[in-house]
Amino acid sequence: MGNTFGQLFRVTTFGESHGGGIGVVIDGCPPKIDISEAEIQRELDRRRPGQSKLTTQRKEEDRCEILSGVFEGKTLGTPIALAVRNKDARPEDYSEIAGKFRPSHADYTYEAKYGIRNWQGGGRASARETIGRVAAGAVAKKVLSTLYADFEIVAYVRQIHDIVAKIDRSTVKMKDVEKNIVRCPDAATAKRMISLIEQVRDEGDSIGGVIECVARGIAPGLGEPVFDKLEADLAKAMLSIPATKGFEIGSGFAATRMRGSQHNDPFEMRDKRIRTTTNNSGGVQGGISNGEDIWFRVAFKPPATIALQQKTVTSSKKESALAARGRHDPCVLPRAVPIVEAMVALVLCDHALRQQAIGGRSQ
Amino acid sequence: MGNTFGQLFRVTTFGESHGGGIGVVIDGCPPKIDISEAEIQRELDRRRPGQSKLTTQRKEEDRCEILSGVFEGKTLGTPIALAVRNKDARPEDYSEIAGKFRPSHADYTYEAKYGIRNWQGGGRASARETIGRVAAGAVAKKVLSTLYADFEIVAYVRQIHDIVAKIDRSTVKMKDVEKNIVRCPDAATAKRMISLIEQVRDEGDSIGGVIECVARGIAPGLGEPVFDKLEADLAKAMLSIPATKGFEIGSGFAATRMRGSQHNDPFEMRDKRIRTTTNNSGGVQGGISNGEDIWFRVAFKPPATIALQQKTVTSSKKESALAARGRHDPCVLPRAVPIVEAMVALVLCDHALRQQAIGGRSQ
Amino acid sequence: MGNTFGQLFRVTTFGESHGGGIGVVIDGCPPKIDISEAEIQRELDRRRPGQSKLTTQRKEEDRCEILSGVFEGKTLGTPIALAVRNKDARPEDYSEIAGKFRPSHADYTYEAKYGIRNWQGGGRASARETIGRVAAGAVAKKVLSTLYADFEIVAYVRQIHDIVAKIDRSTVKMKDVEKNIVRCPDAATAKRMISLIEQVRDEGDSIGGVIECVARGIAPGLGEPVFDKLEADLAKAMLSIPATKGFEIGSGFAATRMRGSQHNDPFEMRDKRIRTTTNNSGGVQGGISNGEDIWFRVAFKPPATIALQQKTVTSSKKESALAARGRHDPCVLPRAVPIVEAMVALVLCDHALRQQAIGGRSQ
Amino acid sequence: MGNTFGQLFRVTTFGESHGGGIGVVIDGCPPKIDISEAEIQRELDRRRPGQSKLTTQRKEEDRCEILSGVFEGKTLGTPIALAVRNKDARPEDYSEIAGKFRPSHADYTYEAKYGIRNWQGGGRASARETIGRVAAGAVAKKVLSTLYADFEIVAYVRQIHDIVAKIDRSTVKMKDVEKNIVRCPDAATAKRMISLIEQVRDEGDSIGGVIECVARGIAPGLGEPVFDKLEADLAKAMLSIPATKGFEIGSGFAATRMRGSQHNDPFEMRDKRIRTTTNNSGGVQGGISNGEDIWFRVAFKPPATIALQQKTVTSSKKESALAARGRHDPCVLPRAVPIVEAMVALVLCDHALRQQAIGGRSQ
Repeated sequence: MGNTFGQLFRVTTFGESHGGGIGVVIDGCPPKIDISEAEIQRELDRRRPGQSKLTTQRKEEDRCEILSGVFEGKTLGTPIALAVRNKDARPEDYSEIAGKFRPSHADYTYEAKYGIRNWQGGGRASARETIGRVAAGAVAKKVLSTLYADFEIVAYVRQIHDIVAKIDRSTVKMKDVEKNIVRCPDAATAKRMISLIEQVRDEGDSIGGVIECVARGIAPGLGEPVFDKLEADLAKAMLSIPATKGFEIGSGFAATRMRGSQHNDPFEMRDKRIRTTTNNSGGVQGGISNGEDIWFRVAFKPPATIALQQKTVTSSKKESALAARGRHDPCVLPRAVPIVEAMVALVLCDHALRQQAIGGRSQ
Repeated sequence: MGNTFGQLFRVTTFGESHGGGIGVVIDGCPPKIDISEAEIQRELDRRRPGQSKLTTQRKEEDRCEILSGVFEGKTLGTPIALAVRNKDARPEDYSEIAGKFRPSHADYTYEAKYGIRNWQGGGRASARETIGRVAAGAVAKKVLSTLYADFEIVAYVRQIHDIVAKIDRSTVKMKDVEKNIVRCPDAATAKRMISLIEQVRDEGDSIGGVIECVARGIAPGLGEPVFDKLEADLAKAMLSIPATKGFEIGSGFAATRMRGSQHNDPFEMRDKRIRTTTNNSGGVQGGISNGEDIWFRVAFKPPATIALQQKTVTSSKKESALAARGRHDPCVLPRAVPIVEAMVALVLCDHALRQQAIGGRSQ
Repeated sequence: MGNTFGQLFRVTTFGESHGGGIGVVIDGCPPKIDISEAEIQRELDRRRPGQSKLTTQRKEEDRCEILSGVFEGKTLGTPIALAVRNKDARPEDYSEIAGKFRPSHADYTYEAKYGIRNWQGGGRASARETIGRVAAGAVAKKVLSTLYADFEIVAYVRQIHDIVAKIDRSTVKMKDVEKNIVRCPDAATAKRMISLIEQVRDEGDSIGGVIECVARGIAPGLGEPVFDKLEADLAKAMLSIPATKGFEIGSGFAATRMRGSQHNDPFEMRDKRIRTTTNNSGGVQGGISNGEDIWFRVAFKPPATIALQQKTVTSSKKESALAARGRHDPCVLPRAVPIVEAMVALVLCDHALRQQAIGGRSQ
Repeated sequence: MGNTFGQLFRVTTFGESHGGGIGVVIDGCPPKIDISEAEIQRELDRRRPGQSKLTTQRKEEDRCEILSGVFEGKTLGTPIALAVRNKDARPEDYSEIAGKFRPSHADYTYEAKYGIRNWQGGGRASARETIGRVAAGAVAKKVLSTLYADFEIVAYVRQIHDIVAKIDRSTVKMKDVEKNIVRCPDAATAKRMISLIEQVRDEGDSIGGVIECVARGIAPGLGEPVFDKLEADLAKAMLSIPATKGFEIGSGFAATRMRGSQHNDPFEMRDKRIRTTTNNSGGVQGGISNGEDIWFRVAFKPPATIALQQKTVTSSKKESALAARGRHDPCVLPRAVPIVEAMVALVLCDHALRQQAIGGRSQ
């Protein structure tokens, strides 16, 4: 259980880091949406290891194949199965961790839950699992683009460790994000971030940071009171991404130090539409989108895998020590940007279909 | 849609602030759990308006009735329906807001979504909706207590506006929390918080803050990779509570400024069990509980309803102004403490049953 | 678990035959549908005991109350809670069955499953549970009427024991059904059915029969391959009704003795639409409605409760005997007609919303 | 939507008859269950076309591959993905049906629902879709065998057209079923069935029949009142199989002509357990298993694809005619036997896990 996301645009991912392959089945995708393997591959390439000097140098080609649900370039309304073969497996790299629980990894908890685990790598807890999410997100974006003319999602690295970028949330575009390998649209700060990541990697350590994301062009009305509020589903989506520790929407934790008179977003008429003057709400009020930009932030911890030696215990309950070998990311944020985008696309697409179900118009 | 929470311990709430009543149906509760109306009422009384000088002085008795699913003091395994009548309705209080969208409330978005709303109060977006959650949470706590001998949940106010309390997360008990009306177990700080809330109320304004919560005694193994990670479901649960803007588990946003070597929780043998030396993970690794305390924080914004005059627009799209009349909370946190507890109980109970389903032991 | 029906038009029933009350919560009902307590009550009155000399003479008023989700006569899009108080409880009638398992009742299996049961009557297995279904069905019919101009459901008694009525499935109307107390639109046969039921009752025995149902005016396109085929969901809906033993759609079991060349429904152009010449398919092909009448039959067994003495065992595993006392239906079919209608309405309404979700038009 | 079956043992199938491949993802399978590709393949081979002279002679190897969820021969508790490549595609065979709706096929309804269809064969409505069900059923059987020592499922052909076999439902074994190619354990009758099928095939026509199924060794307590009654989920499972028209459990439609005094199953003590003397209930009472054999029947219509010429219309709404070319089954029942077994295994496995979830023992 727990491998399906969404109520109507239902995404089920499968696959361990080692074994036959990784993939996703999308059930509930509307028919007649244009989609190609190339479009999906483009998103996967943004998530792929080895894409820059900042990421692990593992060679994972991550070549995506559409197994079903698409005919002559269009979705059929039937399940879309997408699969990527596992290739670059080197099980010998993992011999040590077969018997030792890596600190702050999922080795111990998988063992505690299931009494068994695939110790050849991260198994199901591997970041490789997110391939299925990114592939499904590519489809969700296509669906959303057919529903909302001005729809776009822009996610970017806003903070690496203590380096915070200056970014105009209202105007930033994806092409700005893709200009550098750290995916921070503030060029000067990006350079400092890159230097820091390289330094930390050379020290055998790792660092975290914050990704910010904006979704534009979504009509008012998405989100289902009371448990499936839009921000609740976004929070779940984000906290389901490996290495995340926090989520805040709009004003977020800063709201805790504001007064109602400062925080409230007054309504006004603008462009003949009902708009809010400010957007502390983050585009969502009472769990439902209000037509303003939806924006939020996600906290990522430093990756657990580090080259420095750490204390741990073995599966036979002996105290021991461990230092990671092999090829690992010192900082997951650059590669996590397309994952955040994919998850927000899944949430919005699901809620768009839910709104259509009760006869609500998309726009 | 969206009014059901949980996969196996399934909770469906219903009811607007005005109308016949408010309540909840719990489906999937195990049989033969002892439960009484009095136990549920005790939790509801902690959530009730008018319980102290800090909260709205509306008289809502919130008397809970068990309609089904309990026989001779024990659950039957069948749906437990709990209902509370609406009583203290004063529709005349709401005549103005029938035609004006209150800033940062859900009036506009409900109208946008449904094309209709019950303008006699907050409707479904009213905090009154949480009655059903707290009632269901009381049942969930009973189930969890039968599964985990040392189980307890302690939630408390950690911050009001810029006043931050000092609390030992490892030792704080619910009786410490209940010692004062602001539900902050740091007595000296609690006094300052109370003064500030009263001052802000007298100014016609409102303030927010942070609630922290610890769940103790949960066995390793709860949480379902990959989308229904324990932290993902906790994040969703918390962001589904009215007025919340953020969630962080364990180290949370602070993790973004730590290095892996600082942040990782080394494993050690303690009390003959595998334990972690530190608990930056917040009791969850790879989405699964590791047997340590589960702890997290929730950000609450200042309530949207304030006596100060604000700009807004009418439902006929004219610009206008509005000042709240009537009886409202200047700060929701004291009453939100039992709601946070209830939601974490729902998440843990659901995951405990999910773990049982695959043959996992509770402890 | 198991008390919720539907994916988008989600109906959760609650309540035992004895205890506070019985009811239903509908989540996912579209907004702005006209509905009143009177309309729901009208359907409940068709299901009510004591409505004719053929049914149990228990006085159950079954007065329905709308607790939420409706405002000024229109649905809000929020959960609609409907409740009926339990009143005519006579626990003394049930003292004997507290310790003896009634043959072909659910006493033993509830005990086996839950280790506890409400022995004051049928508990959750009581036919009283269907009150919630009929109430929800009344709402579903209203939704369907707004979607399909010519929509109607007609269910009727086609067979009682070995008496089979002659009914023109294509033209029969609900007013024909309601003309007599056995709800069989073939007047002459209805008389014989009534006589037989009375005779069987006087002998302390019970009998079963077949209900046939036609749904007209449904557009092509409802039904979700592959597991949620329209006939699959109809079959589940019907077999979830107490006392049912079989379901067949269109040609049904008779199809097993036909050849493909006889059974296939040729397509033709009629009224400028694509129609089938015959309708062995029962209005569904490949799990999806084809625009023809949807028709099916449901087999009901003779009620388990009879005045004749029967062998059984006690809960302490002693062999014993039992004869029902009190007031019981010798034949459930007349009262089951509105229940069948309600369940088909729930299935069709759910599938109509599912079709809308992917952008499909209703008609 | 609609491609997932089960609440806890969740099976999602994907794939069209033509395109990359066909498969299934199983989420919720308990960990540490022994399973191999060979065991799954054995079941698939029973479903495979070309296995005997009675079935279509298409060469479909249907070679199954485990992509994930199994490690060193044991399930991991993570999603099990199983895929079969599509190979023997001959799109030229299908050129005619691209523009004509085959009578009693799903061509027209898919077009009506989705506005698009893969006309290269049956698309998603192809019997090939059941590969995923059979593969998942093989895993479900393994899980059930670990829970119930005496568990077995035996399905067999009971009737072909008007030829009805004599079979002792209480003692028949799978090896008896597999003794002949029509899968009818009554050898003499099987011969007559085979002759009739060959004759009908030679005439370019098709025939249907009835499959009966018995599940033994299931403990009392499986099944969830009130909508997810065991018979309701079985009915849905069976009616989701292509070409089915009816379902009856235990006494079924024959119950409609019995009296309560004949139909009721008296309880007695046997082998120190509470048993029923007869089993008209079909092993289920009040929706919950009572420990007796669960038995039911499924009606299959004659396949829609026949070589005889039939009337139809084109997608441009012209009246036309059509005669099937290519390789088709004159009778689906022999190959449907393993599909029925698979679906009942999915239902029982799901309900076994649901029962475990509330703390119920398996036996």
